[in-house]
Amino acid sequence: MANSNRSDQGEKSRAQVDSAAAEGKAPRTERGRRTLRKLLDASAVEFGEKGFHEASVSSITRRAGVALGSFYTYFDSKDALFRALVQDMSENVRTSARSALKEGMGAMEIERAALAAFLAFAREHKEIYRIIDEAEFVDPESYRNHYETIAGRIRARIEAGAAAGELRTGLGEIEAWAIMGMNVFVGLRYAVWGSEDASPGDPEEIAAAVNRLLAEGIERR
Amino acid sequence: MANSNRSDQGEKSRAQVDSAAAEGKAPRTERGRRTLRKLLDASAVEFGEKGFHEASVSSITRRAGVALGSFYTYFDSKDALFRALVQDMSENVRTSARSALKEGMGAMEIERAALAAFLAFAREHKEIYRIIDEAEFVDPESYRNHYETIAGRIRARIEAGAAAGELRTGLGEIEAWAIMGMNVFVGLRYAVWGSEDASPGDPEEIAAAVNRLLAEGIERR
Repeated sequence: MANSNRSDQGEKSRAQVDSAAAEGKAPRTERGRRTLRKLLDASAVEFGEKGFHEASVSSITRRAGVALGSFYTYFDSKDALFRALVQDMSENVRTSARSALKEGMGAMEIERAALAAFLAFAREHKEIYRIIDEAEFVDPESYRNHYETIAGRIRARIEAGAAAGELRTGLGEIEAWAIMGMNVFVGLRYAVWGSEDASPGDPEEIAAAVNRLLAEGIERR
Repeated sequence: MANSNRSDQGEKSRAQVDSAAAEGKAPRTERGRRTLRKLLDASAVEFGEKGFHEASVSSITRRAGVALGSFYTYFDSKDALFRALVQDMSENVRTSARSALKEGMGAMEIERAALAAFLAFAREHKEIYRIIDEAEFVDPESYRNHYETIAGRIRARIEAGAAAGELRTGLGEIEAWAIMGMNVFVGLRYAVWGSEDASPGDPEEIAAAVNRLLAEGIERR
């Protein structure tokens, strides 16, 4: 669970951008990669603000400052871009959680740091909820894949924690989905809605409260 | 937390159906109530299958076996019906959880029974996820209200459990949102998706695993 070093991250984000383009359309140059990145970022804003159906390719290329023709160099359609964006956001969630992890962290500390990083990420990228949630309707396979992938990562972490003797044995898929659900809903309340009202709360404090629930439960002892 | 008796439930479902109609359009007769109930049930199937945008009032009245004119006796528009349906589903979730609670249950047992009842309910009414999730786009206020109401109920339960000395003190809104998230995602995985694959799992077993996580956490002691 060590932090990736900088050059690793560079490799990763390049691979991430490359794989976002349609089959056979991966950018061949650094400039192409930047264009693709601009299209993905502009589409996150556009889909987040307008929703899939109202969003348009021409408005996305305008936001990105990219020629319409360039769009079709990388994507066949608005649907293909949306699919690529969901995949890209899954990767961004992964990267933000990973970047918070430090060598030597215990299993519970890893869960706390991953949630705090996710809350901070979601606060900066509130559109992620709307986009992932809209995928349920626009691209159900991406939606399901997004959550199955995250649950799979959580499961691997808690199984490793159990194997290391830090967590109790027998943890598996059910607990992974429960943990993911806690994180998603706490993020909805405190990162997405929270900052619209008077009680946004500090990501570190919220992550600590959820982490305590996760570590020791709510029963009085 | 005692079970409502039959006549209470009759009162409640009548009030629930009455309040589903538009302002000033509550049914005045038993027959009217039945018609309104048919419209709500048919709309759950229609919105669940087709989604809000593809759904049509004429198809809903056809499914319900009700004249088109009757629809406008109770609702001004498809939007108004959708709003009423989200409200009705919130009430149904509440009723299904309540009906599982028995006099004398402890605080942890209440959470377990409420989740098991919700999982059984969601397995029978898979459309609830799609409809509530679509409310985020079609009627954001209903969406937010649905989850804030449920979180409020969970919060009241765990605060009562803490006051009774069964749960630790200091539990509040964060824990309520975390518990709701666990329940929603475990329901998505095992009640909605689960029965499409090889590992549906028994609602009682799944509720027991989540309840153990909630009672004692995942840390090894």
